[in-house]
Amino acid sequence: MTSQNDVSDKRPPPKDLTHHLSRTTKNRQASSIKQFYKYFGIPGIGQLAGGLPNNYYFPFDTLEAKVARPARWEPTPNKPIDPPADDDDEAVARLSLKDVKKQSSPLNQPQDSLTVPHTSSQANPIKKIDLSSALQYGTAQGYPPLYYFIRQLTQQNLHPNCPYKDGPEVILTCGNTDGFSKVLQMLTNEWSEEKDWVRDREGLLVEKFAYGNAVAAARPRGMNIVPVNIDDEGMMAHGEAGLQEVLENWDHKKGKRPQLMYTVTMGQNPTSGVLSLQRRREIYALCCKYDIIIVEDDPYWYLQYPSSTAVNTTTTSDPANTSFNPDVRMFANAEPVPDGWKSSGYAFLDSLVPSSISIDTEGRVIRLDTFSKTVAPGCRLGWISAQPDLCERLLRITESSTQQPSGFVQSMIAELLLGPDQDGLEKSLKKGGKGDLPNGEGWKADGWIRWVEGLRGNYERRMNQMSKIMDDGKYLIKSGHRNSLGSHDDNEWSVVEKTQMYSFDWPVGGMFLWLKVHFETHPLYHTYGKNEKEIARLSRALWIFWTTKPYLVLVSPASIFCPTEEIMKAEGWRYFRLCFAAINEDELGPVSERLADGVAAFWRIKDSKKIEKLLEDEEAAVEERAGLAQMAQMIGPC
Amino acid sequence: MTSQNDVSDKRPPPKDLTHHLSRTTKNRQASSIKQFYKYFGIPGIGQLAGGLPNNYYFPFDTLEAKVARPARWEPTPNKPIDPPADDDDEAVARLSLKDVKKQSSPLNQPQDSLTVPHTSSQANPIKKIDLSSALQYGTAQGYPPLYYFIRQLTQQNLHPNCPYKDGPEVILTCGNTDGFSKVLQMLTNEWSEEKDWVRDREGLLVEKFAYGNAVAAARPRGMNIVPVNIDDEGMMAHGEAGLQEVLENWDHKKGKRPQLMYTVTMGQNPTSGVLSLQRRREIYALCCKYDIIIVEDDPYWYLQYPSSTAVNTTTTSDPANTSFNPDVRMFANAEPVPDGWKSSGYAFLDSLVPSSISIDTEGRVIRLDTFSKTVAPGCRLGWISAQPDLCERLLRITESSTQQPSGFVQSMIAELLLGPDQDGLEKSLKKGGKGDLPNGEGWKADGWIRWVEGLRGNYERRMNQMSKIMDDGKYLIKSGHRNSLGSHDDNEWSVVEKTQMYSFDWPVGGMFLWLKVHFETHPLYHTYGKNEKEIARLSRALWIFWTTKPYLVLVSPASIFCPTEEIMKAEGWRYFRLCFAAINEDELGPVSERLADGVAAFWRIKDSKKIEKLLEDEEAAVEERAGLAQMAQMIGPC
Repeated sequence: MTSQNDVSDKRPPPKDLTHHLSRTTKNRQASSIKQFYKYFGIPGIGQLAGGLPNNYYFPFDTLEAKVARPARWEPTPNKPIDPPADDDDEAVARLSLKDVKKQSSPLNQPQDSLTVPHTSSQANPIKKIDLSSALQYGTAQGYPPLYYFIRQLTQQNLHPNCPYKDGPEVILTCGNTDGFSKVLQMLTNEWSEEKDWVRDREGLLVEKFAYGNAVAAARPRGMNIVPVNIDDEGMMAHGEAGLQEVLENWDHKKGKRPQLMYTVTMGQNPTSGVLSLQRRREIYALCCKYDIIIVEDDPYWYLQYPSSTAVNTTTTSDPANTSFNPDVRMFANAEPVPDGWKSSGYAFLDSLVPSSISIDTEGRVIRLDTFSKTVAPGCRLGWISAQPDLCERLLRITESSTQQPSGFVQSMIAELLLGPDQDGLEKSLKKGGKGDLPNGEGWKADGWIRWVEGLRGNYERRMNQMSKIMDDGKYLIKSGHRNSLGSHDDNEWSVVEKTQMYSFDWPVGGMFLWLKVHFETHPLYHTYGKNEKEIARLSRALWIFWTTKPYLVLVSPASIFCPTEEIMKAEGWRYFRLCFAAINEDELGPVSERLADGVAAFWRIKDSKKIEKLLEDEEAAVEERAGLAQMAQMIGPC
Repeated sequence: MTSQNDVSDKRPPPKDLTHHLSRTTKNRQASSIKQFYKYFGIPGIGQLAGGLPNNYYFPFDTLEAKVARPARWEPTPNKPIDPPADDDDEAVARLSLKDVKKQSSPLNQPQDSLTVPHTSSQANPIKKIDLSSALQYGTAQGYPPLYYFIRQLTQQNLHPNCPYKDGPEVILTCGNTDGFSKVLQMLTNEWSEEKDWVRDREGLLVEKFAYGNAVAAARPRGMNIVPVNIDDEGMMAHGEAGLQEVLENWDHKKGKRPQLMYTVTMGQNPTSGVLSLQRRREIYALCCKYDIIIVEDDPYWYLQYPSSTAVNTTTTSDPANTSFNPDVRMFANAEPVPDGWKSSGYAFLDSLVPSSISIDTEGRVIRLDTFSKTVAPGCRLGWISAQPDLCERLLRITESSTQQPSGFVQSMIAELLLGPDQDGLEKSLKKGGKGDLPNGEGWKADGWIRWVEGLRGNYERRMNQMSKIMDDGKYLIKSGHRNSLGSHDDNEWSVVEKTQMYSFDWPVGGMFLWLKVHFETHPLYHTYGKNEKEIARLSRALWIFWTTKPYLVLVSPASIFCPTEEIMKAEGWRYFRLCFAAINEDELGPVSERLADGVAAFWRIKDSKKIEKLLEDEEAAVEERAGLAQMAQMIGPC
């Protein structure tokens, strides 16, 4: 791992946490190829040592793309519509909603061309972006220009307040699922009931409702999945079934007290909370006390919606509330900053709740970042930020598995962010190369931050649209006459009966609205409310009912986010996750309306035969269709 | 796993081998998302279930490339020079060597343009190639159009003679190192000396000289690495330390008898052998007897050089000898084929030694294929071919780790091979889309086979060039007078003293020449030949000597291919691997000459002080240089 240590950096080094390494990971050794490194630089050396094909035999001569400009989307507040106002034409920002669909097509937006050339004569690998390097075997930490860009962004802009020396090291991954899989290999030992002692069983702390793919990665290794209670922010440090209680009262008959935590702290999936800095400090203190490593998986960091906090507490949206970070006003007002506290250099980043890396004095936070939500999931590109010793072990794991993310995506993202390698290409031309010198400068860090700010704008508008509609539909309103028989006096008057069918907090981050359905107000609750199994059937019937005409909506039941059977039985039926991110903008409103209407119609069902019919018809109702591949793609890994 | 079973296929199904699955892999469950599949197809359903970003927010509007035509390179025989004769200009094929460098630049070759559009309205996922699908979350088995193309190529063209029903299923990987890592997870349990019984230790059979990265992946898991003797073909079934002997005489005190084999059977890395069909049958029979699963890693399948076989047996090159497969003449001469034996449809493929899948009656071959050597290593794209039950388990492992190869490379390779999705794009245009209908048809299977045939041509010419030079230099020729003292008569005459310094078989496949150095003929053998440690020092000195002026060549010592310490000590010093693939064509001759000259000069060293000086200077001789990242890239994973 190349490191550019700054001797003037007075921060203390991170703590040695290598006692957490799995047996397998302790066994890993650096590649024996290192012995060759020092010979590679001999001028004129004939390279017969490597085992690689010839660069000239790649069938790709260039890679190219049409790409967005960073300002394609408007930051918050960006009402009333999606797009563009990309450059000089302010009128487009005031288009009516019927123009949304047309405008929201990226092909109607200003765009730039990007080219990754075949060969650049650039000698500095940090600046060289060409196919001869990107499509050849590379280094496990990442394609050098991209690796250095991300490393610098991470250390200087994303986590400038990391408390340990030099800040986090980074290593590129094939996305966060790959990243977490590698972290599990690094830090956990496989355990089997049939052959191992219970006392050796390792545990993974997760939120009570957790991202299912993470649980699915850990459970087959024999890990004990240990849920921790949550509130609207996310994981609870204290209180009933909070982290402290789980750890203090640990029952060793269940296995080792957990020393690894998986958590989504910004736009928690599925509950959409954002963990405050105060809560982070509380959790971090407990993790230090009990020697726990925190895996912070935050694909939605940039999607924080402080306006929701205002709604949730005052029921009045406050568009001026654009910051989660109490310190941001400080920067904005040029007030003196607290001792040693650094700005990221970007007001937008300063306005966000920072990563737990900012308080990671001991180096026990392993953070997973991804391009999946900011560029595209199909990139399969992300990075891990952690203390250098842990990144070094991840490097060894990478060498024996994925080796490196695909050079196709690495070179194109590098070109997008860094722009053309003018120097190297100029030299190539002088040597008799072909073509013109490229235009453009790349997005750089400025463009990247502007891009994610625009994405936040788009998703926040969607969040507001769905939340508003769902808010409006939460009561079943029934006009009627109060029956005089039950009245306390003899007067009859017309009343409005309000039944609350569901509730939710406006999402403060991420892509989901977490809907709590009040089945206890359903007219058939007397039939289905007698036990958890029956109420789960009523919940299932609602889910099916939504998929029928005229409602036609598919949502995720909470059951797929329950890390344990107990939680599934106790609460798996109570919640549903609605994603406002994937659907086309013009459908979001109508679909949200149909969803709310569906609940109201379901609440009007008074005959349990109808419920039973829905459950019976489930299998028959919808033909299984071909093209499962495409269908699976429509939902992603959830 | 989608399967298109052919009921008329009379082949028996593969054997159930799920007892080989690791505990972790047995624990894996299909994603709970499957419960949604049947609802996805409801017309007009509002999708709020998935957890994915909106397609329109990807900053990439198109991906494009300039790509080669399949006929860019000439198949064997293609003397005297590298390139092109791509189309009408036959003159270029007769260019002199000084033009090679210029011509070998792909930018001077005819090329086509390739575009992956943002959105196609194609309904069939097998035909749809666009960024809306490729850059979204996808399916773990692979991007549908590419997955189906590879599946069909695999079943119909690559392994038409697979003996089990429907032939092998496939799943895409992030290259063969990723593929092997997943196979290890699927089939092996972690083992630790400190806590597990020796009897539970699992073993991995490998060639005596083996690809180091595979060993490096298995060893940290606690696996017992078990070498099997090799000859010029590759792994030996019978004879001393051959597979049969290893298995029959297994000492259970070393662990379980191995049930997994890792083997490179075509262009074995590092020894370059190609395993004949007869040898495959012998090894396969033993694997059935001892219930062993064979992992066949063959990145160099297409690089088979039958002309070398002729050289190795007759010392006379026979350019007419272009086939390894005794059956190919049969097809060429339209003779009746053996009962049920099928042609691949391509004379080139028919001429190659087939994969062991062709004899895999029980379904115990897991084959690893990659685009690394046929397109580019940076693709990080390959596929596994195996019986469906094993592919299903690999799918589960993929879902919790890499999820899918990058959509950037999957879509561009799909577009290269399949060509534009004309139907879908036409529909998009009718719906008000933008742009022109694309040209081109894609390479299709025909183009792909022609491309790899051209690559074989290029690499075979390189192999011949290096082998010829090395052949010419293997004797140290000394003219002199025979000393009359030792003569049988009184006549004195001038003699030529020939000392053989090294020997090698001409590579019959792959990218490497495996050089055996005859240190016992070195004048200082009396000093260094007394034990293995000393001879290893002499070998190391030769390696260093090569890196000095005027020789300046870097080769791989056999030590990095020794799977055990014992082999390293006994033979690690005796061989060197020379890669003729990576170096630029114009350098191959001069560098090979320098290599041969270096041996001769080393053989002229008669003072052991010179040897000691080389060894002492090793550390000081070459400054460690910056840019390790770039340097590591120059050698790849070996």
